[in-house]
Amino acid sequence: MPYTSKLIEEAVNEIATLPGIGKKTALRLALFLLKSNPEHTERLTDSLRRLRSQIQYCSQCHNIADTAVCSICVNPMRDTGIICVVEHLQDVIAIENTAQYKGRYHVLGGLISPVEGVGPDQLHIEHLVQRVQTEQLQELIFALSATIEGDTTTFYITKKLKDFPVKLSSIARGVAVGTELEYTDELTLARSIKERIVYH
Amino acid sequence: MPYTSKLIEEAVNEIATLPGIGKKTALRLALFLLKSNPEHTERLTDSLRRLRSQIQYCSQCHNIADTAVCSICVNPMRDTGIICVVEHLQDVIAIENTAQYKGRYHVLGGLISPVEGVGPDQLHIEHLVQRVQTEQLQELIFALSATIEGDTTTFYITKKLKDFPVKLSSIARGVAVGTELEYTDELTLARSIKERIVYH
Repeated sequence: MPYTSKLIEEAVNEIATLPGIGKKTALRLALFLLKSNPEHTERLTDSLRRLRSQIQYCSQCHNIADTAVCSICVNPMRDTGIICVVEHLQDVIAIENTAQYKGRYHVLGGLISPVEGVGPDQLHIEHLVQRVQTEQLQELIFALSATIEGDTTTFYITKKLKDFPVKLSSIARGVAVGTELEYTDELTLARSIKERIVYH
Repeated sequence: MPYTSKLIEEAVNEIATLPGIGKKTALRLALFLLKSNPEHTERLTDSLRRLRSQIQYCSQCHNIADTAVCSICVNPMRDTGIICVVEHLQDVIAIENTAQYKGRYHVLGGLISPVEGVGPDQLHIEHLVQRVQTEQLQELIFALSATIEGDTTTFYITKKLKDFPVKLSSIARGVAVGTELEYTDELTLARSIKERIVYH
């Protein structure tokens, strides 16, 4: 695009490196900042710099944290007997939003994916095995995506842990709440029949 | 959302102040920056700070510029006899993209809008009148939005300039290129008939 200013061109190009933001949106955001007061840009850039330079990863669960151990792991109200295994931070936030889970987490940092060249060594799996060995755990709940990568990762870890006296479970797969049965895909429906809930 | 880190919470809240970006997208962008190398965040924040602190407005046409006069106004190849009147910078970029216009611009900085409380004094209209008085102009082309505000602004300025020996014109309103006639709204169609192009 023929910008009349190098400054705006550079800013637009940098903003457009962010995922899901094209040149037009980037220009809109840059012009919005130009119209707002200078402190707005200061606050935004400061918060991004602080985030990038000061963020830490929890030494216990690999969740992001402001301190060496995250606020969930240090919370004495959380059940230390259960660990929920998730792919990444967004999953922790999603599960916390349900307010249904009171245990702790273990963030793998990804899923095993031969296609994308991600092997078990690149994930925090070895540390999870250590946690199972050293912590007094009753249960590990796998809350991974319902994809081939998610299932492969669950299978790999459960195989590694089969000799430990810990209950292994996975979140239920089935028809999503609010979905009409006739529009549910066959794989989901098949799985929801196979893993049906017995009432009586 | 229950973030486990104040740093990410602050960053997400700041990013979400940008137009069209909600909390979920903001989180995605923040995590993207965390995954990229630190220089990426440095470059992005640097370019935004530079943009906000060093940008200037062209003293002739009010376009944004890196210098006191913008690159279009100083360009000796541009026709100094024609000025295209636009609402804001994006319009300059849009018209430059067509590569059909070789004159200069005048950026009003908005449109007259009683509803939003924008009067003629808040726009660069007085300066435009001065330019018409002092520069040797053959033509002023109004390229404002086809809205009530755009038409009101064109009407206001053309009335102010009616005694000057300068040709006043507006970009054509009509059926957009590539549009099927039956799906064109009545107002556009009515205007395109009224302002039809005479071939012979």
